[in-house]
Amino acid sequence: MSQTDWSGRAAEALRRIRERRPLVHQITNLVVMNPTANATLAIGASPVMAHAHQEVADMVQLAGALVLNTGTLDPDWIESMLLAGRRANELGVPVILDPVGAGATPYRTQTDLMLLSTLEVSVLRGNAGEIGALTGAGGAVRGVDSVEGVADPLQVATAGARRWKTTVAITGARDVLSDGTRGVAVDNGHPLLTLVTGTGCTATALIGAFAAVEEDRLVAAASALAIYGLAAEVAAETARGPGTFQAALFDSLYNLTPEEAEAGVRITPLPVD
Amino acid sequence: MSQTDWSGRAAEALRRIRERRPLVHQITNLVVMNPTANATLAIGASPVMAHAHQEVADMVQLAGALVLNTGTLDPDWIESMLLAGRRANELGVPVILDPVGAGATPYRTQTDLMLLSTLEVSVLRGNAGEIGALTGAGGAVRGVDSVEGVADPLQVATAGARRWKTTVAITGARDVLSDGTRGVAVDNGHPLLTLVTGTGCTATALIGAFAAVEEDRLVAAASALAIYGLAAEVAAETARGPGTFQAALFDSLYNLTPEEAEAGVRITPLPVD
Amino acid sequence: MSQTDWSGRAAEALRRIRERRPLVHQITNLVVMNPTANATLAIGASPVMAHAHQEVADMVQLAGALVLNTGTLDPDWIESMLLAGRRANELGVPVILDPVGAGATPYRTQTDLMLLSTLEVSVLRGNAGEIGALTGAGGAVRGVDSVEGVADPLQVATAGARRWKTTVAITGARDVLSDGTRGVAVDNGHPLLTLVTGTGCTATALIGAFAAVEEDRLVAAASALAIYGLAAEVAAETARGPGTFQAALFDSLYNLTPEEAEAGVRITPLPVD
Repeated sequence: MSQTDWSGRAAEALRRIRERRPLVHQITNLVVMNPTANATLAIGASPVMAHAHQEVADMVQLAGALVLNTGTLDPDWIESMLLAGRRANELGVPVILDPVGAGATPYRTQTDLMLLSTLEVSVLRGNAGEIGALTGAGGAVRGVDSVEGVADPLQVATAGARRWKTTVAITGARDVLSDGTRGVAVDNGHPLLTLVTGTGCTATALIGAFAAVEEDRLVAAASALAIYGLAAEVAAETARGPGTFQAALFDSLYNLTPEEAEAGVRITPLPVD
Repeated sequence: MSQTDWSGRAAEALRRIRERRPLVHQITNLVVMNPTANATLAIGASPVMAHAHQEVADMVQLAGALVLNTGTLDPDWIESMLLAGRRANELGVPVILDPVGAGATPYRTQTDLMLLSTLEVSVLRGNAGEIGALTGAGGAVRGVDSVEGVADPLQVATAGARRWKTTVAITGARDVLSDGTRGVAVDNGHPLLTLVTGTGCTATALIGAFAAVEEDRLVAAASALAIYGLAAEVAAETARGPGTFQAALFDSLYNLTPEEAEAGVRITPLPVD
Repeated sequence: MSQTDWSGRAAEALRRIRERRPLVHQITNLVVMNPTANATLAIGASPVMAHAHQEVADMVQLAGALVLNTGTLDPDWIESMLLAGRRANELGVPVILDPVGAGATPYRTQTDLMLLSTLEVSVLRGNAGEIGALTGAGGAVRGVDSVEGVADPLQVATAGARRWKTTVAITGARDVLSDGTRGVAVDNGHPLLTLVTGTGCTATALIGAFAAVEEDRLVAAASALAIYGLAAEVAAETARGPGTFQAALFDSLYNLTPEEAEAGVRITPLPVD
């Protein structure tokens, strides 16, 4: 698939989100629930947060995607993730995992590895430190921020994708993705994203929205990251700092047309060994 | 009561909130706690969130209203709602219920019905799908969004009001309210409200603030919805999308004077059979 | 230390935060997690929220400060605070306590007193009502807002500082701090801060960031409060109400240079008996 094809697919996926308004069930962390819900609405999809063991299996049945995020995990919420994830797997609803803070504590790393081995995860998105910690490729995390990258992100993403039969997205200044056989880089984005909490988590929520309307997981993930990064570029033009940037980012996600997306996304295929 | 009387009552209630600064105890969902607290402050009241079983009965004793919201319910929080709600009923503190997502899962529907039959609820506010699900009048919910209305909102609100001896507000492009004997429509609002998470929950929190200073529940609920909708109309004038709209909405709630409220609210009495 | 010395120390601490980017582990309330994380990022530090009993001791090990906040406390979270706090004390990581709502319910007051007697707290920051309730000096709290001050804030802060071997900050229009032997007042700030939820909690989170790079707790706390207040003054210049103020506040925290801080902070030494 050429660069132009990737752009066209991204625009087409955005068009479908706006038409179908897929429900994205999110079992996510307490810090980012509000902005990820708002970003999900702004892109054109419909968020729902639900974590009660009594209802997660029922809720995921209505959803186009399930987003799991371990940013403020505890045993009760891990059980919620497993209950929802297993049902999603039975139903063929894509499961997107954001392993926030993997590598920072053994509890996080072990929980994310358990989720990856127990559930069929469609897309795993994290920063280089998190994905490095999970794959054993190195990288370092302090709290929830990546403080040291991995030497070869494409190789790490590919290894992870093969190991867990998933698509891996390592996000950073350049996002690198692999589904084990195909690689791709996304060069949209803006440094202000690192100054607002939950922008990584929001990227993951948007991957959920795209995966609900696009069956090719690599296309869905790359499209979501590119369009989110493009919206951030637009938002940064008027922002006077991280506060006005965040407000402008919801605006630009909402205002971005499929045509602007097609013209602005920068997705480059990468050869995979 | 004529349309002019409703406007005057709304303005008077706003005036009282600003003078008395009532405490609004909210046991609400994890997604919207921040914006509902900010809206409560912006209108001139004082929010407090508290859910520990050990303190909810003590906290509600200080409050002018108790707001219950099942948006991210679980057994622990339902128990908090019951403990606080029973004490509120003993003390005569009005209880406002927002049945977020009723109809989406059996757990939500059953919990909301249980709360309605166990507690004396002063105002029940939901979208058409939620109220339709609770009253058995039809309507449909996907996640937390109403995707199908009810045929006759006034009839549904009136039936619900009579069944649970409460005031029912069905919100949407036109809000329809009934206390079982009187009906009223509110035509303030703006489509951007549907693009920000928790705007329904915020409406409910504001009904709490108004119910703390206005004993007539129908007047309190209609006033809150009209003034909130009016603030949204003002906010939309400067918004460039849902992000700047949300910030502008807190501004306009704060800046709205009782005189502007009296001139701008659009509350119309409706005959009830 | 002269007024000029205090200004220089504040600027120097800000410089160090920007260089070292300390991790601030926050076990805080559900209402404010998002804005306190964003303020921590905006000032130049790195926030992490983690409350699982399984990981808090590991997480605090990576941190430059631990911030505890009882705004939506429950037994599970109190245990998290104790586990993290004890480990922080072992490691010499400063512990900052925000006793949100102390005085409003016995449960809050008793929990905060228990935390103060069980843990070595480096800085205790609250409003006059909260600190008054904890020290027995009077003052009154309704919900989480101080509704009645204490007669002599410096005397109350000093008594508290001596009793718990800590630094006490009583915040309000004028902030008054004492470490038991030295007193100081901070006159930066803006009334709009009282119209946004979690601005007190945010002040506490920022004290955490400053305490991570400045060993003198009184200097750290006064610097944080002065710089936060100064950022609020800048933000208020462009704000049209509490919504745009909040966005502008993150911008101004981020944009504030150490030079501007040195010129703008208003910290005045106060004699302590």
